[in-house]
Amino acid sequence: MAKLQELSPALIPQKLIGPIRIIAEEFSDEVMVPLATFETPLWPSTARGARVTYLAGGITATLVRDKMSRSILLQAPDARRAKFAIGDINENKKLLETVVTSSSRFANLLNIHSELIANLIYLRLEYSTGDAAGHNMATLASEKIVNWILENYDFLNYVSLSANYCTDKKVSAINGILGRGKHVITEVVIPRKLCSRYLKTTPEKIVDLNIKKNLLGTNLAGGIRTANAHFANILLAVYLATGQDAANIVEGSQGIVHTEMKNDDLYFSATLPNIIVGSVGNGKEVEFVKQNLNQLNCNDIDNTGKNAHRLAIIAACAVLCGELSLLAALTNPGELMKAHTRMER
Amino acid sequence: MAKLQELSPALIPQKLIGPIRIIAEEFSDEVMVPLATFETPLWPSTARGARVTYLAGGITATLVRDKMSRSILLQAPDARRAKFAIGDINENKKLLETVVTSSSRFANLLNIHSELIANLIYLRLEYSTGDAAGHNMATLASEKIVNWILENYDFLNYVSLSANYCTDKKVSAINGILGRGKHVITEVVIPRKLCSRYLKTTPEKIVDLNIKKNLLGTNLAGGIRTANAHFANILLAVYLATGQDAANIVEGSQGIVHTEMKNDDLYFSATLPNIIVGSVGNGKEVEFVKQNLNQLNCNDIDNTGKNAHRLAIIAACAVLCGELSLLAALTNPGELMKAHTRMER
Amino acid sequence: MAKLQELSPALIPQKLIGPIRIIAEEFSDEVMVPLATFETPLWPSTARGARVTYLAGGITATLVRDKMSRSILLQAPDARRAKFAIGDINENKKLLETVVTSSSRFANLLNIHSELIANLIYLRLEYSTGDAAGHNMATLASEKIVNWILENYDFLNYVSLSANYCTDKKVSAINGILGRGKHVITEVVIPRKLCSRYLKTTPEKIVDLNIKKNLLGTNLAGGIRTANAHFANILLAVYLATGQDAANIVEGSQGIVHTEMKNDDLYFSATLPNIIVGSVGNGKEVEFVKQNLNQLNCNDIDNTGKNAHRLAIIAACAVLCGELSLLAALTNPGELMKAHTRMER
Amino acid sequence: MAKLQELSPALIPQKLIGPIRIIAEEFSDEVMVPLATFETPLWPSTARGARVTYLAGGITATLVRDKMSRSILLQAPDARRAKFAIGDINENKKLLETVVTSSSRFANLLNIHSELIANLIYLRLEYSTGDAAGHNMATLASEKIVNWILENYDFLNYVSLSANYCTDKKVSAINGILGRGKHVITEVVIPRKLCSRYLKTTPEKIVDLNIKKNLLGTNLAGGIRTANAHFANILLAVYLATGQDAANIVEGSQGIVHTEMKNDDLYFSATLPNIIVGSVGNGKEVEFVKQNLNQLNCNDIDNTGKNAHRLAIIAACAVLCGELSLLAALTNPGELMKAHTRMER
Repeated sequence: MAKLQELSPALIPQKLIGPIRIIAEEFSDEVMVPLATFETPLWPSTARGARVTYLAGGITATLVRDKMSRSILLQAPDARRAKFAIGDINENKKLLETVVTSSSRFANLLNIHSELIANLIYLRLEYSTGDAAGHNMATLASEKIVNWILENYDFLNYVSLSANYCTDKKVSAINGILGRGKHVITEVVIPRKLCSRYLKTTPEKIVDLNIKKNLLGTNLAGGIRTANAHFANILLAVYLATGQDAANIVEGSQGIVHTEMKNDDLYFSATLPNIIVGSVGNGKEVEFVKQNLNQLNCNDIDNTGKNAHRLAIIAACAVLCGELSLLAALTNPGELMKAHTRMER
Repeated sequence: MAKLQELSPALIPQKLIGPIRIIAEEFSDEVMVPLATFETPLWPSTARGARVTYLAGGITATLVRDKMSRSILLQAPDARRAKFAIGDINENKKLLETVVTSSSRFANLLNIHSELIANLIYLRLEYSTGDAAGHNMATLASEKIVNWILENYDFLNYVSLSANYCTDKKVSAINGILGRGKHVITEVVIPRKLCSRYLKTTPEKIVDLNIKKNLLGTNLAGGIRTANAHFANILLAVYLATGQDAANIVEGSQGIVHTEMKNDDLYFSATLPNIIVGSVGNGKEVEFVKQNLNQLNCNDIDNTGKNAHRLAIIAACAVLCGELSLLAALTNPGELMKAHTRMER
Repeated sequence: MAKLQELSPALIPQKLIGPIRIIAEEFSDEVMVPLATFETPLWPSTARGARVTYLAGGITATLVRDKMSRSILLQAPDARRAKFAIGDINENKKLLETVVTSSSRFANLLNIHSELIANLIYLRLEYSTGDAAGHNMATLASEKIVNWILENYDFLNYVSLSANYCTDKKVSAINGILGRGKHVITEVVIPRKLCSRYLKTTPEKIVDLNIKKNLLGTNLAGGIRTANAHFANILLAVYLATGQDAANIVEGSQGIVHTEMKNDDLYFSATLPNIIVGSVGNGKEVEFVKQNLNQLNCNDIDNTGKNAHRLAIIAACAVLCGELSLLAALTNPGELMKAHTRMER
Repeated sequence: MAKLQELSPALIPQKLIGPIRIIAEEFSDEVMVPLATFETPLWPSTARGARVTYLAGGITATLVRDKMSRSILLQAPDARRAKFAIGDINENKKLLETVVTSSSRFANLLNIHSELIANLIYLRLEYSTGDAAGHNMATLASEKIVNWILENYDFLNYVSLSANYCTDKKVSAINGILGRGKHVITEVVIPRKLCSRYLKTTPEKIVDLNIKKNLLGTNLAGGIRTANAHFANILLAVYLATGQDAANIVEGSQGIVHTEMKNDDLYFSATLPNIIVGSVGNGKEVEFVKQNLNQLNCNDIDNTGKNAHRLAIIAACAVLCGELSLLAALTNPGELMKAHTRMER
């Protein structure tokens, strides 16, 4: 019975868009961002956003948080013993930190968050993982922790090394609230004139649309911790171009656009609490990925630990550009389809 | 100022896994499924799932529903006139059907779902779109409907051609409840012996894990309409291999695993209410995509309208294989990491 | 072993607040609304909202929808037969309507919404129930339908007469999207001068607060289909004063405040998609309830079927008053606590 | 213009049900629980649950966590300064603890959880509040903290003293994940014989129903962090009988039933992460409330700080009784309606 058969690689069309001008604590730079996608209208649309933010002086980016998590699941005979175990495990946190360090040079245990339902213990273990996205590092470290726990609490039973309380590639509220991946905020102030000239709209129209579509519309649709038009599109294109575990756009899609009038101009921001990227690990050895990471200057061995931050910031800035451009287009009835049909000819 | 620069295509590694044996109303077949992904452990894991379901007699697949939606947003001076407009628009549904038909040979207006908040009208327009995933067809048809409405109700103002009540590439409850894309259910009964021999586990352990991880764990994580371990991974790999608008894995990830004991064996099912795929449209003209669609026999011009159904069913069956294999692995402490580290060497 | 022991009734403090001036399609009136609550600061706060809306010309109320639902749960041997059964049940809808009519003079089957997960059939049966809130009427009618289905589809098994897909007194997205209870929208335009004089704030401040607290804050908290400050408080007070099944404030709490500038004034609206009230049924025979319903003119036997509508509209208007007043207070640092401490002395 | 008019109190029917036998770390006791409700079938149904758990040896209760929270909202000129402020505020936590202590004898600042979206700072302040539910204590303490922050960071602007990130009387994921109120777990093992004799069902049927109704059905309905049949009903009845701020059943309703087979018997648990009750504060001075709290022995001045714990545990145990009884009834087609119609005659 056949099982696995080699195929030539899938060839996803790519273009570089930009320059995007970025002002961050970590660096200030102008970058050309590779977007790999079948949805070719994304290119000119994101490029339009890049251009207008460039002319506005660039995008300010702030990295707020960085961690990777894995949740493990254990069962006690009853809630009372489960509660005792959680308390005791927390008291042994220092020891568990060394257990983690022994599993990898780069992983560090940051925090243990627990939840107790019936006699079931959900432990969400949070790590720093250097330049790696950290899925495997977190799983490996968590396996060591599971083993330590099972050895030390003989009344606990193993249920799972991954309990959907992490949570990976699934919709949740927990990732945003407790953090998973890199939390990046991007901001720009677009003068009214640039809005009019390049986006064919006004600051007021974009503010109004963001409230009624991204906030209210998502609320009515039963969305959860999300308010944006199409973060997922640009995030996927960056992830594919840079060799990421791209199914993480599921949680990546859960981000927030906030806009308001700033005097007469447009304050426009995109907050992405769950960017999951690495500059090392699975996929990074592929040739075109290396080229893209090099071109983005995200492969600097003298700067270990900061490459993934730079990449997350770049991805977030590209997302802002794509979002700004689409929202502007939607304020103009007819423009959206014109753009699409023009591109696809 | 540079804007767009050509790049060689991104090369995503692909393998064919299978054969997956599928029994559906539409067809019965054995297929080899291409998975394009950087996450190479997905290949042997999904292949293991394929093998055990093959030996169990194959996967039964049921396509329940197929539609594409776009929501438009209009504003009335007050709720009373908004309510009147909704009533009147619904009475003109037949007329709107012809408006849609004039926009495309393949689009048909199936249903109008409305929601009224304050004086804001959210209209979710639902279409059938033939073999296309239907994003653009639905947008184009909705634009015609917006124009018709604005001409006929002069007290309504345009707000947006897309109102996040659709909803595309965002987390929601509405897509599952009202339908968007293809709703496919896959089922298999795995005899206890096969569980033991190929999955190194028991039916009881998988049933138990599904409850505590997929149902309870997701619930605690604040998930919404989702209960699975990693639907997104396999769905993305199939989408990329077949030229889909792959950011639709966001809603694709919102699916449900249900398992129970069936006598002494394992009933295992994966329900995917939001598979969004097409055999025509953006991306399908790329050479490797054509080859993959041909190999899957999803390019049959004598069977127009059914190619996308076939593709959705195949994708769902691959998802079941991947899910079954990962859940089985998680019931065995240690197996998961062994598999990963073996693969990545 | 003791089981049940009579107690004197619980005495919940009540006050009448108002007059609230209401302009609805169904009636225009000024009403004094009884609020039963231990939270005494609710009285002056809601009264302040009533006064300012009164001076602004009254609250416009629009009733959009009215239904009660119950979901039943059946299981087929596999998804294919489940799909067949759903199709066939829908084709027999006319017959089921007569089954329902036979169960009650007042219940009518409006719609059947189905969802199929694995081999499980969730049928959400929607009814009109006259002046009753309709819980029992819907359950009784659904029981008849269950029996009819089990008699006619021998391959289906009973799982539950209530499947949380209804859903009663639980958080959901489905109730808002498909409707359960009475969907009422209330609107008022508050002139800037009244904002300043009675609410000590400006229209702009309330609009801004609503976006950042009710929309964004709720989104971040992982709320679902809800954006308000304290609908639940006022709704509970009205429900208790009028003999309702008051745990229905759980879904009642899931409503939306939308505000925007209207020229220089404040457009303020509260949308409550899930008000569940009746003027007949459990609790309505209690003496103080009768008095309150009479005082509200919601006991008009010449107007059967409209009493519950009137009551829902009144409840929604009271909610708007309470919401407006609290939001105004929150725009003034310090006012909230002053009010509370003043009251509680 | 009339504003507020006294009314005689609302008279909600009450009965004592029980005895409920409770085994907790804090105490072991048998209690009769007052339930105030218009829904009279709740009494015999909950009493049935009490009886069977009594015969099974009683309910084990575990209190896991106790806190009250209030979120404040501030705005910085940009995300970078917002990030700085959050960091600096956290470094001043010790000082803020003294600010809180000065506001009340009973309030203590436990934790500060922050979230940064655009330039908006959501600070969720968590407190212990002794025997009070703590709404006002938390608000008062948070007002002091707001003032301190505004004095010390002149670049921050006040937005709101309450930002829906708390969150009070609204649906959320955050309350369960981070904690608000008292998190109580109740467990009981019901021997098969008692299931059969008093509940007319089997352990297997209840386990099966819980999965398909409470877990799957809620998931499909778009529920969030909730899996139960009617926690809200019993919780409301206890809250009303004991003078609580009863709109807190909104978050109280978000709890989880977990059941599984334990050998041949039924392990049944109800986890309520958000019970919000106090034995002092608003409403507790009312005469019947005092009587009820005394009868429950929740007014022990020698045991300050523990009265509210005892009350939360009692409420949770009553909830388990009600839940068990209703789920059992639902496994028997027909029983539910018989019970209702019998009662209501």
